[in-house]
Amino acid sequence: MPKRKELANAIRALSMDAIQKAKSGHPGAPMGMADIAEVLWNDYMVHNPANPDWANRDRFVLSNGHGSMLLYSLLHLSGYDVTIDDIKNFRQLHSRTPGHPEYGMTPGVESTSGPLGQGIACAVGMAVAEKVFAAQFNRDGHSIMDHHTYVFMGDGCMMEGVSHEACSLAGTLKLGKLFAFYDDNGISIDGCVDGWFTDDTPGRFEAYGWHVVRDVDGHDASSIKAAIEEARANKDKPSLICCKTVIGQGAPNICGSEKCHGSPLGNDEIACARENMDWPHPPFEIPKMIYSRWSAKGNGFMAEDSWNARFKEYEKAYPHLATEFTRRMTGTLPEDFASHTSNFIDSVDVKAESLATRKSSQNAIEGLAPVLPEFFGGSADLAGSNLTRWSGSKTASSAEWDGNYMNYGVREFAMSVMMNGMSLHGGFIPYGGTFLVFSDYARNAMRMSALMGLKVLYVMTHDSIGVGEDGPTHQPVEHVASLRLIPNMDVWRPCDSVETAVAWEQAVTRGDGPSTLVMSRQNLPYQSRSTETMDQISRGGYVLRDCDGTPDAILIATGSEVGLAVEAAMTLESKGTQVRVVSIPCVEAFDRQDQAYRRAVLPPRVTARVAIEAGTTLGWYRYVGLNGAVMGIDRFGESAPGNELFDYFGFTPDNVMALVEQVMEKTSMAA
Amino acid sequence: MPKRKELANAIRALSMDAIQKAKSGHPGAPMGMADIAEVLWNDYMVHNPANPDWANRDRFVLSNGHGSMLLYSLLHLSGYDVTIDDIKNFRQLHSRTPGHPEYGMTPGVESTSGPLGQGIACAVGMAVAEKVFAAQFNRDGHSIMDHHTYVFMGDGCMMEGVSHEACSLAGTLKLGKLFAFYDDNGISIDGCVDGWFTDDTPGRFEAYGWHVVRDVDGHDASSIKAAIEEARANKDKPSLICCKTVIGQGAPNICGSEKCHGSPLGNDEIACARENMDWPHPPFEIPKMIYSRWSAKGNGFMAEDSWNARFKEYEKAYPHLATEFTRRMTGTLPEDFASHTSNFIDSVDVKAESLATRKSSQNAIEGLAPVLPEFFGGSADLAGSNLTRWSGSKTASSAEWDGNYMNYGVREFAMSVMMNGMSLHGGFIPYGGTFLVFSDYARNAMRMSALMGLKVLYVMTHDSIGVGEDGPTHQPVEHVASLRLIPNMDVWRPCDSVETAVAWEQAVTRGDGPSTLVMSRQNLPYQSRSTETMDQISRGGYVLRDCDGTPDAILIATGSEVGLAVEAAMTLESKGTQVRVVSIPCVEAFDRQDQAYRRAVLPPRVTARVAIEAGTTLGWYRYVGLNGAVMGIDRFGESAPGNELFDYFGFTPDNVMALVEQVMEKTSMAA
Repeated sequence: MPKRKELANAIRALSMDAIQKAKSGHPGAPMGMADIAEVLWNDYMVHNPANPDWANRDRFVLSNGHGSMLLYSLLHLSGYDVTIDDIKNFRQLHSRTPGHPEYGMTPGVESTSGPLGQGIACAVGMAVAEKVFAAQFNRDGHSIMDHHTYVFMGDGCMMEGVSHEACSLAGTLKLGKLFAFYDDNGISIDGCVDGWFTDDTPGRFEAYGWHVVRDVDGHDASSIKAAIEEARANKDKPSLICCKTVIGQGAPNICGSEKCHGSPLGNDEIACARENMDWPHPPFEIPKMIYSRWSAKGNGFMAEDSWNARFKEYEKAYPHLATEFTRRMTGTLPEDFASHTSNFIDSVDVKAESLATRKSSQNAIEGLAPVLPEFFGGSADLAGSNLTRWSGSKTASSAEWDGNYMNYGVREFAMSVMMNGMSLHGGFIPYGGTFLVFSDYARNAMRMSALMGLKVLYVMTHDSIGVGEDGPTHQPVEHVASLRLIPNMDVWRPCDSVETAVAWEQAVTRGDGPSTLVMSRQNLPYQSRSTETMDQISRGGYVLRDCDGTPDAILIATGSEVGLAVEAAMTLESKGTQVRVVSIPCVEAFDRQDQAYRRAVLPPRVTARVAIEAGTTLGWYRYVGLNGAVMGIDRFGESAPGNELFDYFGFTPDNVMALVEQVMEKTSMAA
Repeated sequence: MPKRKELANAIRALSMDAIQKAKSGHPGAPMGMADIAEVLWNDYMVHNPANPDWANRDRFVLSNGHGSMLLYSLLHLSGYDVTIDDIKNFRQLHSRTPGHPEYGMTPGVESTSGPLGQGIACAVGMAVAEKVFAAQFNRDGHSIMDHHTYVFMGDGCMMEGVSHEACSLAGTLKLGKLFAFYDDNGISIDGCVDGWFTDDTPGRFEAYGWHVVRDVDGHDASSIKAAIEEARANKDKPSLICCKTVIGQGAPNICGSEKCHGSPLGNDEIACARENMDWPHPPFEIPKMIYSRWSAKGNGFMAEDSWNARFKEYEKAYPHLATEFTRRMTGTLPEDFASHTSNFIDSVDVKAESLATRKSSQNAIEGLAPVLPEFFGGSADLAGSNLTRWSGSKTASSAEWDGNYMNYGVREFAMSVMMNGMSLHGGFIPYGGTFLVFSDYARNAMRMSALMGLKVLYVMTHDSIGVGEDGPTHQPVEHVASLRLIPNMDVWRPCDSVETAVAWEQAVTRGDGPSTLVMSRQNLPYQSRSTETMDQISRGGYVLRDCDGTPDAILIATGSEVGLAVEAAMTLESKGTQVRVVSIPCVEAFDRQDQAYRRAVLPPRVTARVAIEAGTTLGWYRYVGLNGAVMGIDRFGESAPGNELFDYFGFTPDNVMALVEQVMEKTSMAA
């Protein structure tokens, strides 16, 4: 019968060997946390390797994602579809074992991780999802959503600001089923952390309202086990289990030093480690007895089987809820969503209101939410400005989890990562608001939504200089362009109430990634459209106002500048210039259309083009070319009333007309 | 003789009246913190309103920058060149009193603030600057750099992650002359913070190693004074003074509620407040006696005068140091900088080495630093990867402040804000490194560097898919394009050792803003250049390799793709196609050149253009137009060895040649 230490050493051996073979990777964390992982996975984790999608599995997140070989070892040993060949292919192109854990690439990986601090925040989101979903679905005697969330984190995660944001909120929320294991090895990449990180971390987390288990020997199974027992006994607070470990434990000569953090150990040290660990087996060979002790297949099958039986009981008692449970956990939209939303959009068009798009956005939430119980809203302390609450909003909190809204506090980054966590958990379409300019604070979380292909909706209000008096610190001029650069992120910048409703519909309908919904602070005029035109909004770009015959020039505009474009076009028409106005609320959606459609909207032969957007101009040359012109803002804003600023920055019909004349002249000369 | 309360009420009156007149602003914080500010400014702040640039003044930062009227009131009342008309023009276009405090717009404003949490981190940077500068310049009996740094912060700042990063490091650094006043009013925009912010903040800061003064009555001058005395008595730790306050104190009906946070009080409530405060004076009228008690001009003159006398003594004893003190505090480069650097660049060219540009970057630091004692380096725990240390690097720490390097820990955001603080303090050119992909974490701080026009250098290594095995979480594909969008940010993406050296030279020479230096992980080939070509690198874009006569096509490339462009051009030439290669290491610098130069490099008649950059393509259409092509990466990367990835993503000479043929065909058809 293998001893616990041998089980842990299997992780160490796989990790050091795979990293050596790849000539790249981070052995320090997998070897240092092997004993903790062994106890947690073998004695506590409830999961079924045969079904990584089982709704009620415990969630495990490796926040120190560079230690990916720890996770791959765990998945391989416990019986997930991660083979020894996968392990051998660590960090190779299209392998199941990329350099950092990537959601969707490897069965059992619950979240992409690597950008430090986000794993813990993501786990907080998962723990919130569990609480809310349980409150919405569990019934007396039917505890069908009831699992734990575990997260491993290192010194790097502890130093990152997002860990503060998320753990502070987790304390307030009393997330008693969240367990974080802190790999307190005193080493980060630059060396011993004494010179730059001397927090009393247990004290810090107690200040957040966490239950803290101090001074656990992270290499002693019984200490680890006692710590987990203590943590589980405390059901009213999230727990931090502080494990003293030695980085690279097992490698006798360089353990305890930053040298084993991020490079292969080298063949010599690996040979020493084999001897030191009394691990005589060749690389990538694990004795059967050890595999057998590690396997979670049997327990996993029984756990899920028993849950399935309980779910059947639940289904009998609450057939409608059970159907909804499955629908929501599989991420399927309600059957009536399409028709309901289509009717709603028509009703918005009929109303023909000229509102701030942030208000139209709230109306859209109000319109869609009644058929979308999976909607889970929130704002980073700007609910009244972002207008993210609707009449059915009910705050979820430790006092009452049965809600659909969260006050995230002034924590843009944690909010965004937590939304990723909720989306990964399943059962929710999270949306959250802040000022567009502060998307900067959340940027890498938005990138992670896009990288993981998650349906997370970012409600970013107070676009551009329309912000007005708050001035340049609060006026996003480069942010729309900048968010468009994130691969797989759809950015909607609607021009009126109708485009706003369509933007929400598209963001909810989209199955493979996040959307950012950019909304104005100020009122924007309603644009009237034919039925055919209405149907084209979802294509991301369309002819909003056409002229007779081939246009002399095309005006391309988005959001708050569409009204200006239409106004200028009308005046130009009255003067005999034929101008088409193209609205492109979502560049990404437009670019996904087939070439025929795109060419119909922007005929290649018409190169006299002016793009108008109250933001940085760079990206628009793709649509107007070398002969075109872009009216935008390539500098920081100013503090003044918003309407004055649009004049000051030159967004006037006269200036648009002058630019049209200029590009017409240029293109006629070029022809 | 006016009582202290009356002095504080002058702040309240000015704030509520100015905000009412502007119909916009945040009265809650100025009214809530008026008493604290009154005690600090009248009894402790050492400053001279007649000379906001006095080197040894105390620094004051309003981290809760939305309370700008607090700061403007203080500046006006104490005698800075902020007139009552300036106050009346609050939040109007080009006034000295913009919505949030803006560095450079208002005498006495030490930093732009408003993006929450950054003010406290900026103050930490200022306090570090004071310590390091003092260690470098003070001599026995000559304490010429010796001031305090004060910062006000609210609940929002406390919730933001960057406050954790900066305050944790401040604790490690034992910044005893840093004093933070926490406006603990229990209210944020969404209401009473109990639902989302329940930290034991004193406990949290004690865990960071701060001295905490708890439970101060923020409306009682003697309590405030006692707290400051206690804090000043503790010289080994930064101090947090926790003041219980009532938001909007003075406005009897809506104080204590989020309703007074961010909107004018309204005329009725203002009338009530006047009565409540026993403040009978009309708007914008302050009794002379109150002005007189507030004036800091006399004390300020004496303080600076006495310092001037001490500086004269210092000058006598240490004439060279005194000259250096002045040179560095005024931000003047050393006289020999230009010639030294020019020689260094020539020496790099002579060596003709093919290195990773991160290594060339380290060589550049090594080359420039000996004549730049103001260089203050650092890295967010990636010194060995970013290569930010040079042979003369010496870590500054609480044990030994006489250094020129900081281990910031895994704190990209705090590092960047702290660099802003050091730059604002004066005496330093800070540079700091992290992986380019994690510029996301620091993005708003980089924006603030640009907005304030600070000479801060961001060393962003591990560009694009060259990162290799670490995979898409660590491969910046959109970041170069995205940083270029920040107004006033110069982004250099050099292609070899020579361009890297020039990039550093330009970043150091640049007087009005920050620069981002993007460096490769992998080796890049040295490019040979004529003397004339060498001189053109600093123009940001230039003809690296020309052909005979008018080019058939132009290849535009940056950084790691320049070598590929040159290779493709040589093959094309051998096949009879005349190709010019344009290297654009810095788009911003190139765009600043006159039209004649730009047209000489990119002749308008040659529209067969291909841009090559291993990142998102959108921005390059500005240079290649509708008929051109861009070879780039519009998706996330992959985990695999870096060299394999360049092939996988199509960065091959064959593909470049195919694109050249394609655009030549397209343009010939268009002609």
